[in-house]
Amino acid sequence: MKRLDTSEEGFAGDFAALLDQARETTARVDGVVAGIIAEVRAGGDAALIDLTARFDRWRPADACALRVTAAEIDAAIAACDAEDLAALDMAAARIELFHRAQMPRDIEIDDPLGLTLGMRWGALDAVGLYVPGGKAAYPSSVLMNAIPARVAGVGRIAMCVPTPDAVLNPLVLAAARRAGVAEVFRIGGAQAVAAMAYGTATIAPVDRIAGPGNAYVAEAKRQVFGRVGIDSIAGPSEVVILADAANDPRHVALDLMAQAEHDEAAQAILITDDADFADAVAAAVAEALTTLPRANIAAASWNAHGAILLVRDWEEAAALTDRLAPEHLQVMVPDPRALFARIRHAGAAFLGRHCPEALGDYVAGPNHVLPTGRSARFSSGLSVFDFLKRTTWVEATPAGIAAIGPAAVRLATAEGLTAHAASVAARLG
Amino acid sequence: MKRLDTSEEGFAGDFAALLDQARETTARVDGVVAGIIAEVRAGGDAALIDLTARFDRWRPADACALRVTAAEIDAAIAACDAEDLAALDMAAARIELFHRAQMPRDIEIDDPLGLTLGMRWGALDAVGLYVPGGKAAYPSSVLMNAIPARVAGVGRIAMCVPTPDAVLNPLVLAAARRAGVAEVFRIGGAQAVAAMAYGTATIAPVDRIAGPGNAYVAEAKRQVFGRVGIDSIAGPSEVVILADAANDPRHVALDLMAQAEHDEAAQAILITDDADFADAVAAAVAEALTTLPRANIAAASWNAHGAILLVRDWEEAAALTDRLAPEHLQVMVPDPRALFARIRHAGAAFLGRHCPEALGDYVAGPNHVLPTGRSARFSSGLSVFDFLKRTTWVEATPAGIAAIGPAAVRLATAEGLTAHAASVAARLG
Repeated sequence: MKRLDTSEEGFAGDFAALLDQARETTARVDGVVAGIIAEVRAGGDAALIDLTARFDRWRPADACALRVTAAEIDAAIAACDAEDLAALDMAAARIELFHRAQMPRDIEIDDPLGLTLGMRWGALDAVGLYVPGGKAAYPSSVLMNAIPARVAGVGRIAMCVPTPDAVLNPLVLAAARRAGVAEVFRIGGAQAVAAMAYGTATIAPVDRIAGPGNAYVAEAKRQVFGRVGIDSIAGPSEVVILADAANDPRHVALDLMAQAEHDEAAQAILITDDADFADAVAAAVAEALTTLPRANIAAASWNAHGAILLVRDWEEAAALTDRLAPEHLQVMVPDPRALFARIRHAGAAFLGRHCPEALGDYVAGPNHVLPTGRSARFSSGLSVFDFLKRTTWVEATPAGIAAIGPAAVRLATAEGLTAHAASVAARLG
Repeated sequence: MKRLDTSEEGFAGDFAALLDQARETTARVDGVVAGIIAEVRAGGDAALIDLTARFDRWRPADACALRVTAAEIDAAIAACDAEDLAALDMAAARIELFHRAQMPRDIEIDDPLGLTLGMRWGALDAVGLYVPGGKAAYPSSVLMNAIPARVAGVGRIAMCVPTPDAVLNPLVLAAARRAGVAEVFRIGGAQAVAAMAYGTATIAPVDRIAGPGNAYVAEAKRQVFGRVGIDSIAGPSEVVILADAANDPRHVALDLMAQAEHDEAAQAILITDDADFADAVAAAVAEALTTLPRANIAAASWNAHGAILLVRDWEEAAALTDRLAPEHLQVMVPDPRALFARIRHAGAAFLGRHCPEALGDYVAGPNHVLPTGRSARFSSGLSVFDFLKRTTWVEATPAGIAAIGPAAVRLATAEGLTAHAASVAARLG
């Protein structure tokens, strides 16, 4: 963990180094992935069966076995703890409510010159959701990816999840059912992405693929981009916490560790205006690391990428936060809304002393799929907008084209596009 | 040009072949581009001067000469034709009006459980616009790219345009001034993209790069993606025209040729319910090709990729259009709005007999940067949304976290993320 103080000489350079610190090394897997995609395109379901045997250590009996049946989902849900299902249900309802409020409206503008201009939103026809298997199989991610698609009006939502050694995660299946996922396939890796992009006899192709995955999945999404839409490639997670001395240092320490426990490349940063509070949080982190089950991961993250920045005032904190453009931001000061209003770049914000980021990971309502690695400067969290597209439209009366057509002819001619000019001029009589 | 008839045997296969026909071969330039980016990152302005000498056949005297001065822009505007400037001005005003109507509203939801949920839109800080030089220097594209950024509230808009042999296009500079572009650099190719993404002493880095370019520019955008945002990589242009026999075949032919004249890989498709009208349009195209200045390009496009599809009814036409998901759609039937309502996938639509697509290329108001190559299934034209990002936020009272916190603890525990659970549980008292 680094401690930096804005009032000390050398801060600018140290902060720049913190910003530039690479937290992730991506393995080059493009050749392997291109091979897998080619195999699926050529071999279809048979290739999926072979690849599943090779990578997931079980061989589907036939193409039908690639799909999880409704009866299997029923059985999985019956095996879930009732309180887990109730929590999942509360989360789903709140996520749905929030994303419904995001739905945009169409535009129609009557132009007195004799034209009507419009913009129409429409849902994608079909979306594929990738869900990682094994230890990182998160039911909450199924809700966060599938519910915005369903709220947007996507007609068909298919999901692929690897089942290493043929083991399914029951709560993942419960989340899929609750979120309106109609088709669940037990396929993982680059082969799942290829199947959803190009289709096989068993899996109809989709228009967009969303959801996190390992390096192979990320590379496969890159390679099928253009054929289908993809979501952004997620990097390691990060949080910036702005907290004054009135906070409980133990709360702040746990909030930092909640970020750090994700993986060794995660980054947790505290910005405070009080040196004693900084000490207290550092001590509370050390204390927490003696008890947390994932302390090994959290400690590795905190030691390599954690930071405590001491600032002279909150204006300074806001400016530093904008440069960090964090995925998650907690604002734990007396007037959190006022400070949040001075910050331009963050994926998601959590305001006040009673609003840890983990609330947002599960049940608050906004999405937990967020821009990482400073990309909040130019991108946004997952939303209904990822599953909608716009068509603009123009309608012109003869008076309308008479009014604006000559300008189009002029500009087309200036650009040397004479058929453009002629197609307008022909209507000007 | 292919003629297909839905009532003939073999139509399904022929139409599938039309859909799958590759219209573009992309040269592999990734190595060259990676080298240029590395050169600019290491050498800054000096590298830009060298690369400009190498690729654009003129050597900037110093780093200052990379920037087009306000006086040079003044002089260029003074040299423009007054009618061209007036046309540009009308176009700019209409584009601004339309994009202003796109601006979305923030959300704030009061949750009776004791939480407030919100979503805030904010503009990007800085945007870089790439404008191709030489024959493809289109003032209209400057307006279409820069105005949405300015309407969105982007603080700084920089533009790079190559000036082969040191020649500037005056109307491009006039468009830049009119659209609110504050900085214009005479730099092109991958080196311009690298400079905007990483910055040099003369060019401050931006957060997003937009605008079309050749294979080198497209590859450079791919390589800097993640460091900055990019717009979609544009493919060859296309139009689908739905027209009945009541149309003037000569108008439809010119509309098809307006698309075909863009480049040899462009695609123009007529869908009609009348075989005689199909013949008449084909004849009018042949006639138009004897007079149009860009007939060589248009004929190459029409011969290789053009098509006339004869349908039994407009329902069939709507279904075929959705499978084509064209960049541009003209609907020239008695009730164009009703037919348009039955079509789900198109980048931009032009309704009625008096609304050629070329009107939309220049002055109608909606953007002319649109999804190509069937990507209208899952993506949209350029808009203010490309220059905005969202931050979601949550505020919780103690009652709020008491109400929903236990469900978060439950799900975090089920996912094995115990620090997440602890950070919420610590506030539950």
